[in-house]
Amino acid sequence: MSEPVRRFNPHEEPDQVPAGPGRPREREYRQKVIDAALRLIDAEKPVTINALVKESGVSRAAIYRRWSSVTLLIAEALDIGRPAYEVDVSGDPKEVMKNILFDRSDQAREAYTQRRFRKRVEIVMIDRDVQMAYWHKHVSKRRQAEAKALQSGIDRGLLRADLNIEAALDALNGIFYYQVITRGVSNYEPDVIARCEDAFDLVWRGMEA
Amino acid sequence: MSEPVRRFNPHEEPDQVPAGPGRPREREYRQKVIDAALRLIDAEKPVTINALVKESGVSRAAIYRRWSSVTLLIAEALDIGRPAYEVDVSGDPKEVMKNILFDRSDQAREAYTQRRFRKRVEIVMIDRDVQMAYWHKHVSKRRQAEAKALQSGIDRGLLRADLNIEAALDALNGIFYYQVITRGVSNYEPDVIARCEDAFDLVWRGMEA
Repeated sequence: MSEPVRRFNPHEEPDQVPAGPGRPREREYRQKVIDAALRLIDAEKPVTINALVKESGVSRAAIYRRWSSVTLLIAEALDIGRPAYEVDVSGDPKEVMKNILFDRSDQAREAYTQRRFRKRVEIVMIDRDVQMAYWHKHVSKRRQAEAKALQSGIDRGLLRADLNIEAALDALNGIFYYQVITRGVSNYEPDVIARCEDAFDLVWRGMEA
Repeated sequence: MSEPVRRFNPHEEPDQVPAGPGRPREREYRQKVIDAALRLIDAEKPVTINALVKESGVSRAAIYRRWSSVTLLIAEALDIGRPAYEVDVSGDPKEVMKNILFDRSDQAREAYTQRRFRKRVEIVMIDRDVQMAYWHKHVSKRRQAEAKALQSGIDRGLLRADLNIEAALDALNGIFYYQVITRGVSNYEPDVIARCEDAFDLVWRGMEA
């Protein structure tokens, strides 16, 4: 453990990592811990600090130097494979939103399996702290990109000026949650994608100016 | 246990109960078992046949006479407090749908607490058999009433003739799931209801002819 010593700060953002020459090693450390968390989650084992130390080979102090709580660490692990927070919103807003919501890249499929989606929902139903951490640190950030896309649609007169962006994002995103949570199907099945596209078009039509 | 002897039939529908003079007692038996299941669920205890016998005081044979599997029994228990399957669809389709989706009766609130909603989602994420039983026996039936309301809107020229009813129902229902599952809020909070109403209006606009 030769990385530079930093004092533990419980208020630190989990994605603030030391810059500079230590960066690649820093990424490697974070990845080790996140991978360990995902292995524990996939194996249905409790993600405790002790289990993470054992599974990752990274020390307790080194883990707490990077995440102020195991809750935030679990939230970050649960987000692996989801679309990025930064998107180019200069294109057609409808296409931008479709690209975000229908992310069907092989990379996304591989990392964000349906099994893990179900597991994520199970965990946030049990643990409200993880749920709120996941919402504030991850979902909200992704929604900021989505909100920008809709705002640009309003600004260009394509979407209704009085659009409630928050409500619109709930309706658009809710379509995909419904498939996995209520229908019990996978968002990667062709007939499910086709139905989601119809639902998306329907909601979008209601949003148009 | 003096109720008439009926042979166990694993293919029997769970809601087929003997008619005739035994009916009130029959309802009482079913209620005892469902209440026991809900107590176990609320106490985070596994709902096994042994636990149900102990908790309800109803015999194993009497339980299996009424439900062909514990899975179907759990699915029925998880549905307690949800809106009924039969609704009068003769009124304005938009109002009919709003009444179904925004069921805010005291009865619904009391029986279908947010805690139980979260628990239901947790259980169906873990157990795909319960999920599919819940979908086929309960959600699908409720959706049939909703589909009738939308079909009547199409027939009266209020909704688009080419409306994909399944996709529309996914979008409308998804709004409410998103609140509890992703935002981690309660569907009974006034600001949440207001946002859901905006989202509902948005989707509805997209459905209109």
